[in-house]
Amino acid sequence: MTEEFDVIVLGAGPTGENAADRAVRGGLTAAVVEAELVGGECSYWACMPSKGLLRPVAAAAEASQVRGVTGARLEPAGVLARRDDFAHNWKDDGQVKWLDGAGIALFRGNGRIAGDRFVYAGEKRLTARQAVVIATGTAAVIPDALAPARPWTSREATSARSVPGRLVIVGGGVVGCEMATAWSALGSRVTLLARGRLLDRLPDFAGDLVAAGLRDAGTDVRLGADVTGAERAADGTVTVRLADGTAIEADEVLAATGRAPRTGDIGLETIGLRPGSWLEVDETLRVRDADGGWLYACGDVNHLALLTHMGKYQGRICGDAIAARARGTEPAATDWSSTRCVPQVVFTVPEVAAAGLSAPEAERAGMRVRVVDYEIGDVAGAGLYADDYAGHAQMVIDEDRRVIVGMTLAGPGVGEMIHAATIAIAGEVPLERLWHAVPSYPTISEVWLRMLEAYGL
Amino acid sequence: MTEEFDVIVLGAGPTGENAADRAVRGGLTAAVVEAELVGGECSYWACMPSKGLLRPVAAAAEASQVRGVTGARLEPAGVLARRDDFAHNWKDDGQVKWLDGAGIALFRGNGRIAGDRFVYAGEKRLTARQAVVIATGTAAVIPDALAPARPWTSREATSARSVPGRLVIVGGGVVGCEMATAWSALGSRVTLLARGRLLDRLPDFAGDLVAAGLRDAGTDVRLGADVTGAERAADGTVTVRLADGTAIEADEVLAATGRAPRTGDIGLETIGLRPGSWLEVDETLRVRDADGGWLYACGDVNHLALLTHMGKYQGRICGDAIAARARGTEPAATDWSSTRCVPQVVFTVPEVAAAGLSAPEAERAGMRVRVVDYEIGDVAGAGLYADDYAGHAQMVIDEDRRVIVGMTLAGPGVGEMIHAATIAIAGEVPLERLWHAVPSYPTISEVWLRMLEAYGL
Repeated sequence: MTEEFDVIVLGAGPTGENAADRAVRGGLTAAVVEAELVGGECSYWACMPSKGLLRPVAAAAEASQVRGVTGARLEPAGVLARRDDFAHNWKDDGQVKWLDGAGIALFRGNGRIAGDRFVYAGEKRLTARQAVVIATGTAAVIPDALAPARPWTSREATSARSVPGRLVIVGGGVVGCEMATAWSALGSRVTLLARGRLLDRLPDFAGDLVAAGLRDAGTDVRLGADVTGAERAADGTVTVRLADGTAIEADEVLAATGRAPRTGDIGLETIGLRPGSWLEVDETLRVRDADGGWLYACGDVNHLALLTHMGKYQGRICGDAIAARARGTEPAATDWSSTRCVPQVVFTVPEVAAAGLSAPEAERAGMRVRVVDYEIGDVAGAGLYADDYAGHAQMVIDEDRRVIVGMTLAGPGVGEMIHAATIAIAGEVPLERLWHAVPSYPTISEVWLRMLEAYGL
Repeated sequence: MTEEFDVIVLGAGPTGENAADRAVRGGLTAAVVEAELVGGECSYWACMPSKGLLRPVAAAAEASQVRGVTGARLEPAGVLARRDDFAHNWKDDGQVKWLDGAGIALFRGNGRIAGDRFVYAGEKRLTARQAVVIATGTAAVIPDALAPARPWTSREATSARSVPGRLVIVGGGVVGCEMATAWSALGSRVTLLARGRLLDRLPDFAGDLVAAGLRDAGTDVRLGADVTGAERAADGTVTVRLADGTAIEADEVLAATGRAPRTGDIGLETIGLRPGSWLEVDETLRVRDADGGWLYACGDVNHLALLTHMGKYQGRICGDAIAARARGTEPAATDWSSTRCVPQVVFTVPEVAAAGLSAPEAERAGMRVRVVDYEIGDVAGAGLYADDYAGHAQMVIDEDRRVIVGMTLAGPGVGEMIHAATIAIAGEVPLERLWHAVPSYPTISEVWLRMLEAYGL
């Protein structure tokens, strides 16, 4: 016996939840299949717990950067308890209730495709009348060199119950930088090892400011480090070995070196796709290499933008597209942003925020590019916000269309500033019109005025 | 003997500085006339010192709203010293140097128009070949009822050297609310008297949240208070009397009840205008009622938007317009924003920020309006930012054009969020496109997604 739904979603993270929700709002029936916690990586082992840890760090740091404020300090037990609350103590009752309220059926168990429109949820066989959506996300990759040390991944790093005395972090990307920020502030002696620069997908100044911030906070940041091996002794002590002959002892080591798609065990082979591969999609999130038009892939698994908010965005588009096609029409909105306007906030001290294309990306896209740089600290509002404000802004302009296509900000308090850039980029607001968007004085946002002046407006 | 310049600007505040600077960049010569400090009200008795006082208050308050952070407290002497620095100890050397670098001549003394294109700077007679710009700003109005108590105005409130034990503030507008926030946090026992609600030009929730914040901080907020008289005893003690018979004793009283244009003594009568009046201008900032087309008025004096950043914006447009007309062309950019998209941040605890039109304003402008409200605290990023986040967002939409025409935000950390709305409004970004401007998760800015969902997108 098989149960039928219009849409079956593999993975009940935010991406899958959004896809199912929009399909239901579009008049379809939907089920999600999830073997772990409903709410996914973001809710329990990524965004929520990490930001639960990081916000107190930022709030204390920001208070300490303002003369006239004294005494702000972290209470690690309080921070960990706060984190536990934001991770809902790793229980998914609230999310299950939300699914129920949204009219989405839940099947607990491994989701596995078993041919054209068939899915197993554990032992249970389901049929999808319209579509199957793969939203299984990614898992941390553990490099061979670190495996013998049984390293933490982002999961353990965001959910650890106590503060390790010494922590080695391998990887200078977002996870590495954020976890170095958090655990260092909570009392760990942190060594951050990066093969190249920090945050190397962003303009250099971003990683430079974060490295300076981490070093100020006592983190040992080693750039150009090449990890060749690691082991864990019987007493639990970890030793990490570098190509230059150095060995670093620690209580824990975090592998923050990359992500792989969780598509290895979801039955892709039954429909002619390669297990473990990223799934390339079109602008409606439909998998390009699948026959029959019924297979979609949203979020991390399609490799477009490995960020919760982009997965949710894709989920909305995907759910709407499936509903539209069930009605015999084509979707009104397709995925515009995943390739043009991906925003991201890195919750380090200082914060980093970016949206759209970097200058090299814009050039590769064939644009005639101009870059405008500005020291955010030269803006009155920045100096007021933090003493000796150190921060930098970079704007990437498509000279032919005279619109902003990218922005990167690094400095205290920039996290909430990036949405202005996201709107300017997504809205393709001409520079001449943007000039009439007057930033309030004295806010840090006045950097917008300064950059337009520097551009020549 | 008379000295000649293309442009003569009365008033060396930020507005006048911008007008002169843009004129010079446009190839003209310019002079500013200033009897007080170069840099104006904003630099010494408004934005800069007030935000110098308020940022420590906000930073300490925000730290105390995050579990896991303890001990943050204000050190009043440090806060006052910080304020002194931001007010450059009421010395204008830096600003004078800036004028010099910008190639703008400075005349110290009272600026007074003396007929068609003639200006006296003190005793010195100047001729303007192209234009005279009035940028003399506003001064506080002291109500008759308060005059006998020799009240503070915004000047004394932002520059006081010590913390008054008891402070009565009359007026529930921006100055009243900000100064109540600052002095209450610094240790004054503050009574805030407002005739109606607080911040009554904004939607009710803004003033309600600010009133709640002030009361939590120990301020005695009295709405609907009608001040009938005040006096100051020989020992300096002030008594403020209300219509309900109440009398309040204090050490100082602040009159924060409104502003009047500083046009009473600038020679308007010599060119047929009424001294002391607001000066109505066209979209190039030219005074409508003046003959000959050579008289401009920027900033507070034209009564369009009494905010530093709007004065600066008008100054840029005005300087460009004068330079364009000197070349025999009409200006490329005219004032679009002063009537459509004025942003403002109120640096209270919590912050309030608004841009564009309120719903009643939009309706008066003939729009078919829809309002979307959202509790900011329901956004994950808000809860992470501050425990029990209390805040509200309201979006005003022109249903015919399907664009946002107004936004009001109230809550912790919203000050830097308003520029996103300013860009959306000034850019007239269609809602369908705005939907592709994905807010980063988990930031407070995700309220944008929630509001668009609430709208039905």
